[in-house]
Amino acid sequence: MEIEDGAYVLFFYHASKNWLTRIEKNKKLHTHIGIIDFDSILGLEYGSSVITSKQKKVYLMLPTIFDFVMKSDRKTQIVYPKDLGYIAIRTGLKSGCNVLEIGTGSASLTTFFASLVGPSGHVFTYDINEEFMEIARKNLKKSGMENYVSMFKQDIMTEGLERTDIDIAIIDLGDPWNVLQIVHKCLKNSGSVAVICPTMNQLEKTSKHMNEVGFMDIESTEIMIRNIEAREGKTRPSMRMIGHTTYLIFGRKII
Amino acid sequence: MEIEDGAYVLFFYHASKNWLTRIEKNKKLHTHIGIIDFDSILGLEYGSSVITSKQKKVYLMLPTIFDFVMKSDRKTQIVYPKDLGYIAIRTGLKSGCNVLEIGTGSASLTTFFASLVGPSGHVFTYDINEEFMEIARKNLKKSGMENYVSMFKQDIMTEGLERTDIDIAIIDLGDPWNVLQIVHKCLKNSGSVAVICPTMNQLEKTSKHMNEVGFMDIESTEIMIRNIEAREGKTRPSMRMIGHTTYLIFGRKII
Amino acid sequence: MEIEDGAYVLFFYHASKNWLTRIEKNKKLHTHIGIIDFDSILGLEYGSSVITSKQKKVYLMLPTIFDFVMKSDRKTQIVYPKDLGYIAIRTGLKSGCNVLEIGTGSASLTTFFASLVGPSGHVFTYDINEEFMEIARKNLKKSGMENYVSMFKQDIMTEGLERTDIDIAIIDLGDPWNVLQIVHKCLKNSGSVAVICPTMNQLEKTSKHMNEVGFMDIESTEIMIRNIEAREGKTRPSMRMIGHTTYLIFGRKII
Amino acid sequence: MEIEDGAYVLFFYHASKNWLTRIEKNKKLHTHIGIIDFDSILGLEYGSSVITSKQKKVYLMLPTIFDFVMKSDRKTQIVYPKDLGYIAIRTGLKSGCNVLEIGTGSASLTTFFASLVGPSGHVFTYDINEEFMEIARKNLKKSGMENYVSMFKQDIMTEGLERTDIDIAIIDLGDPWNVLQIVHKCLKNSGSVAVICPTMNQLEKTSKHMNEVGFMDIESTEIMIRNIEAREGKTRPSMRMIGHTTYLIFGRKII
Repeated sequence: MEIEDGAYVLFFYHASKNWLTRIEKNKKLHTHIGIIDFDSILGLEYGSSVITSKQKKVYLMLPTIFDFVMKSDRKTQIVYPKDLGYIAIRTGLKSGCNVLEIGTGSASLTTFFASLVGPSGHVFTYDINEEFMEIARKNLKKSGMENYVSMFKQDIMTEGLERTDIDIAIIDLGDPWNVLQIVHKCLKNSGSVAVICPTMNQLEKTSKHMNEVGFMDIESTEIMIRNIEAREGKTRPSMRMIGHTTYLIFGRKII
Repeated sequence: MEIEDGAYVLFFYHASKNWLTRIEKNKKLHTHIGIIDFDSILGLEYGSSVITSKQKKVYLMLPTIFDFVMKSDRKTQIVYPKDLGYIAIRTGLKSGCNVLEIGTGSASLTTFFASLVGPSGHVFTYDINEEFMEIARKNLKKSGMENYVSMFKQDIMTEGLERTDIDIAIIDLGDPWNVLQIVHKCLKNSGSVAVICPTMNQLEKTSKHMNEVGFMDIESTEIMIRNIEAREGKTRPSMRMIGHTTYLIFGRKII
Repeated sequence: MEIEDGAYVLFFYHASKNWLTRIEKNKKLHTHIGIIDFDSILGLEYGSSVITSKQKKVYLMLPTIFDFVMKSDRKTQIVYPKDLGYIAIRTGLKSGCNVLEIGTGSASLTTFFASLVGPSGHVFTYDINEEFMEIARKNLKKSGMENYVSMFKQDIMTEGLERTDIDIAIIDLGDPWNVLQIVHKCLKNSGSVAVICPTMNQLEKTSKHMNEVGFMDIESTEIMIRNIEAREGKTRPSMRMIGHTTYLIFGRKII
Repeated sequence: MEIEDGAYVLFFYHASKNWLTRIEKNKKLHTHIGIIDFDSILGLEYGSSVITSKQKKVYLMLPTIFDFVMKSDRKTQIVYPKDLGYIAIRTGLKSGCNVLEIGTGSASLTTFFASLVGPSGHVFTYDINEEFMEIARKNLKKSGMENYVSMFKQDIMTEGLERTDIDIAIIDLGDPWNVLQIVHKCLKNSGSVAVICPTMNQLEKTSKHMNEVGFMDIESTEIMIRNIEAREGKTRPSMRMIGHTTYLIFGRKII
């Protein structure tokens, strides 16, 4: 697959120095490891490499959804990949699902879920902050996911929500317990909900309300990730680690 | 959605007592919390409940891919949900992908990935153990994923592999380094590979070979999951935790 | 050092099969891996081994404080070694310290701290449950620590506490916030306190009260331990892990 | 207890802004949160506070061994408190023990262990790097532990070691397996050894050699610590965490 004008490329030097940019004729990428002339890479295969003006080798990779999520513009905390992956499997996400998201944020979850539910499924996402929504919209466009997502500026706590065809719902708000009843109504019977709770207090309160509103199989969990530095004869876990992003709660709708 | 004859139902009493069974007319489920007559639940909505002969309330849930994975028959170690989810996002899995799996095992990964690549993508999975493959086949059928998966009994180390259209490859073998070269050839340029390595020694050796064979963005990682017991006024992490399942290594093909 | 009549010996077969017992002439140890005649081991060196009646090799080890803690009789949850060790260093425990303990429990912390403050230091420990205190007394006697510990049956919440010479205080109660003010008075200026809080709710409430009562450098933490199975060519973390014992909070007295 | 000329004081502003300094008449502490005149604090009680020239409140704390370890001068990686504490309890360290340390480094372990074995016990520590030993000597003097420690510049691998009265040995070298036989001879029967192994490869090799040389109860472990931000209504684990310092291996000498 060849790099074309207008395409996105991940310029990869190493794990902490890489750039996700759209290729435009007659333009260049300026980095502290040198300049790359876009004209020189048009027509090259993804997976090939170029040498910068400072003689550094940079790989030209086809960006994945992971890259779009990690490089997304953001004014809010994103949901991290370790959490996104577990939400997907724990809720039973699959091709064709209708997903409801309350709290679009920077659209990292929106992007990932849209990429998986595919052409026959859809993500319906709600937020009240126009500024965040504008960023989310750009992120979705960049990753090519805008056709699988419908965005709504709507305060569902006051205006409610009329859907009833939702397989999986995700809540990413500061006070998730306030929308549980509404989300419950939108879900198909036996449908899954996942709630993102950064603090223990949110976790405790949400868990209690989920039980009252009519969910079962309520499970609270945290996912931790640690990198390993695999080097011959001196393999060890990385000293750097993120200690916490969020707790997650899951449940399923009962009648 | 109503429960029909021949359908699968997750009978859920609590987190460690639940059963995934196919409903058949005139049959019953016998458990130590009582008997459930299948005839009495035909036509009920998923998400509703029944009372067993021992007066216990059991919920009738629509099984998700998560349930099929957790309840799969197995003669091998399965890949756990925490790892499955992270592999999906880290490799950039999305709807329409062609996935190559070396080492079908009990098909837990096969099932999950097949459920996500959807009708336009496909999972090609290879194993050499007929006994495992028979179990895998049954698991795939149960979860309804058999149409999105092609299974091959083939020793790719001696017979090779002719595909070249693979977006994402997963290796789950004891000696993954021996197939890296072959897998590299099957991948599209810039395509992702994930390798499942339970031990540090496999991790170290695989990481080294990935570098030599032509992968970059090589990242080794481990995912940990801990449940939280969220109870009002006495919330705490669970004392029970699985300390380790496997390390994961990721890379992307360069030319 | 030779094994004498009346001495304690740790009979070690493997990590999960070992017994800590007092040697008595003419008696025997009966285990499911065979019988050991005490007369046959009198006069042997610690570190040597015997063969049981079922032909199993068992090592005769000199019990350490770690062994006495792990093998202590208990009717309460003990404080685990991972937590004991960190409390010792984080509070600045050293030889000669006067330690105050509120909540003796089974005396695991009492035993360990008494073994370290040595002949010139002392542990003053308070509890209200006579049954627990009886067990604690026996545990302290077994480990030879009874001379470095004074036990008091006293409800300090109603009766108060008159000490003012304490270097380090440890609180292990269900409602630690209720004794913080009293403990503060007992501590020397700049002295350390450690509080054992199994739940998040205790942690939050205690932390708040510590701040109000007059402590600074307030730090909440949790310690996790994971065993590694180090075997040539297949080294990996253990699948079995304890996910949580308790949170710990530390502070230092300000005037 | 009053602050005297020549004493050490921990000036504590908050957890990441604090200074451990020796008080000298007519001198001052200059920090970015203002200046503190030492003359103004002579005679004050530990635990009291002063106001800097920039109107910031700073507490005057009596430094503990923990503080001396954390603030030690260093040219080598120190052993971290979480590991020090667990080594102490797992080896059965107690008042009066004779401790052998191979690899003094910056003397963090030396300092902590010396503070616990007390007047009747002793730490014998060996290193070959004169530069490190000079730093270690200063750190020991600062913390007041120099009387309980004997330092030796000696390459025990070539020169051997003649002690036989050691209760507990600690090895902190790049190639610990090379001194296991020598350390085994120094230990009393049934005595404990702890080995500090930052990498998996050291762990695997050391574990194997320990078994061959004559140790049992061989246990490999890793200790993790995570801080919790306990704040009313928004308690959560800290995002910042150290992912790895070292693995630890323990064993006991058999004959």
